[in-house]
Amino acid sequence: MTAALKVDGERLLTRLEQFARIGATPGGGVNRQALSPEDRAARAALAQCAVARGFSIFQDPMANLFIRREGRSKDLPPFLIGSHLDSQPMGGRYDGALGTLCAFEVLETLEDAGISTPSAMEVVAWTNEEGSRFSPGAMGSMAFAAHAVPAEWANACSQDGKALKDELADTLAALPEASMRPLGTPVSGYIELHIEQGPTLEREHIPIGVVHGIQGTRWLEVVITGQTAHAGTTQLAFRRDPLVAATDAMQALYASIMPHDDRARLTIGRIAVEPASINAIPGKVSFSVDLRHPDVQELSRLESYVKDTCEKKAAAAGCAATVRRTFDMPPAEFSPRLLSAVEEAASRTGIAHKPMLSGAFHDALFLARVTDAAMIFVPCRDGLSHNEAEYVEPEHAKLGAQVLLQSTLIALGIS
Amino acid sequence: MTAALKVDGERLLTRLEQFARIGATPGGGVNRQALSPEDRAARAALAQCAVARGFSIFQDPMANLFIRREGRSKDLPPFLIGSHLDSQPMGGRYDGALGTLCAFEVLETLEDAGISTPSAMEVVAWTNEEGSRFSPGAMGSMAFAAHAVPAEWANACSQDGKALKDELADTLAALPEASMRPLGTPVSGYIELHIEQGPTLEREHIPIGVVHGIQGTRWLEVVITGQTAHAGTTQLAFRRDPLVAATDAMQALYASIMPHDDRARLTIGRIAVEPASINAIPGKVSFSVDLRHPDVQELSRLESYVKDTCEKKAAAAGCAATVRRTFDMPPAEFSPRLLSAVEEAASRTGIAHKPMLSGAFHDALFLARVTDAAMIFVPCRDGLSHNEAEYVEPEHAKLGAQVLLQSTLIALGIS
Repeated sequence: MTAALKVDGERLLTRLEQFARIGATPGGGVNRQALSPEDRAARAALAQCAVARGFSIFQDPMANLFIRREGRSKDLPPFLIGSHLDSQPMGGRYDGALGTLCAFEVLETLEDAGISTPSAMEVVAWTNEEGSRFSPGAMGSMAFAAHAVPAEWANACSQDGKALKDELADTLAALPEASMRPLGTPVSGYIELHIEQGPTLEREHIPIGVVHGIQGTRWLEVVITGQTAHAGTTQLAFRRDPLVAATDAMQALYASIMPHDDRARLTIGRIAVEPASINAIPGKVSFSVDLRHPDVQELSRLESYVKDTCEKKAAAAGCAATVRRTFDMPPAEFSPRLLSAVEEAASRTGIAHKPMLSGAFHDALFLARVTDAAMIFVPCRDGLSHNEAEYVEPEHAKLGAQVLLQSTLIALGIS
Repeated sequence: MTAALKVDGERLLTRLEQFARIGATPGGGVNRQALSPEDRAARAALAQCAVARGFSIFQDPMANLFIRREGRSKDLPPFLIGSHLDSQPMGGRYDGALGTLCAFEVLETLEDAGISTPSAMEVVAWTNEEGSRFSPGAMGSMAFAAHAVPAEWANACSQDGKALKDELADTLAALPEASMRPLGTPVSGYIELHIEQGPTLEREHIPIGVVHGIQGTRWLEVVITGQTAHAGTTQLAFRRDPLVAATDAMQALYASIMPHDDRARLTIGRIAVEPASINAIPGKVSFSVDLRHPDVQELSRLESYVKDTCEKKAAAAGCAATVRRTFDMPPAEFSPRLLSAVEEAASRTGIAHKPMLSGAFHDALFLARVTDAAMIFVPCRDGLSHNEAEYVEPEHAKLGAQVLLQSTLIALGIS
């Protein structure tokens, strides 16, 4: 019977519209940054929906918001589904909200059908996934997985000068109907639906991505030092031009990493020269390297290769290079059990799907450290995200919710 | 007799010290920007030296300052030697001042020896060679060669908000003892001594450079447009990364221009990417190209080659390139007659010398458009200029003045 159970697609679309009005921007997106009045309004709206259906509400010290539908046993840990409600300053209406509202639709569908689950099911909206108002991103899920608020956040302040501590306290106080619970309450598993934020599914006309894991990311800062000198008076033999070295290094990296491994990502997003004068040979060049790979050992090998390449090319141009790691996020591998559940759910519903990796971070990355976790991707137009023009076909939103429902039922063994 | 004539080296060094105190900076350099109180003080000091020796003084509408020692004929155009007295904001004490004071030393030496010249000889201090307070540089010699003040300077303002017009009027008024003359009074030739502002002479232990010409310069601005996208989610096949194109183009240019032609200069001094985010593939890259060559046809060929290379590399990366010329200074070739005079002067004094090109602009570039012109370079330590640490060995300053004296005598046919 549960295999034929269907979400209410129209109710989902109506709710997406309702939430898109909270912090709406003139360009059709949303500005609903973490712990802002708009974020609190979205949390309050979700809590109101929950209360209307008789679900209970919890918050933890990071203001992660949980909506609980009880199961047959109160002692078994709940199964968790959800995403986040905060957005980028000029963000889209689907990034985060789609996964959270699809999860809530699953809870309502179960309630409508009167299906009892062995354990409770909970919908979660994680705090500050975006990291734009407070850094770093994914604070809520990170603290949940660590069972504690990292000490270095004690004095964190927002871009607009507000203390994280105060904004958390005010946000928690704004939902007095929610009970408090500690960080990291045990769960039996986690499935998160999210927009792909990349172009693959759309280009291949596949509505469901079964996300096997999240690439690891390392950020490096390369600084190459040479000798600034006059553009007109300095012959080649006397030049120690760090931009020549940087160009050689960058070209070698572009040619030898991504073309040979389609799981690797190499991006140079920033470059700066000094003194930045048209008629002066640069004295110093610095550039960023964003390296990603699902295999942590390969990521380490790539980091060494970047370092060696920059040092060699710098030396060949009479310059010196330093390479410093500024960020390190290990890869996550999702649960084979839950991934099978997602695949089976898509197959049985006759929906085209493909296994894929996530290039972006998600809250599921941290959840995978403490429980079985998996993700479902749906396509977004032109792969566009963090942009007011972000768009998801209504049909894909509905299919996503349907696959999330069925995956959850299969994972709970009641399908 | 004149072949044995020698400048008074100690007098020259004393005078260099005297002028180094005008606008002296704590770091041992000078701040004597064009038409500033410090520049006026230096002009007044030179005028005072001239009056003390019985020379007459002239100014033209651009405040170019001329010190005249009469010759046997008042009708023949004077032979001109000199340079400039203005400096960069944190400039050195030799750039410009050395050439002006060596020229004045030549005049005094002739006066001391009672040598009459067929025509008058004049020392010139050109206005605003540096271009730091008012843009462009070489205003004085440019207007002299054009016989007019370019219309586009009518409303020119300094970095500190003063009108060029007013500053010129005040500077002219500060030297009432000088007679006014029109711009571009005819001269029979021009020799300018200057520090090399490059490392060649010092490294080769050669005290005199015989400067055959000044490289032509073109500045290009290259803009390559691609598509910004997420560093993690965008596979290689979907990337249109303008920094990949820029890197390919720059490397091709570095490899194919200077290594094959030691008269060519290629410098990329500025590069900027947008949106300049560590985890975003750039959407746009722009960079400057400074191209120099003594042969104007070769300069045009190089410009086309840069354009073709950027367009091809951009297309190969799925991007588009535009290349715009932002500055064009044709090369100057100096007078063979005057260059022979300089070579003969150095040879007869037994001073090592070599022919060379100037990579930097000088007032002589504009004089070469209206008369026979030549330049003499002396070495400066580490090729350093536009810097408080600029330094010329006293011996090299004296040798320079001596070669300037003898070159002038040979050019005037009285040696």
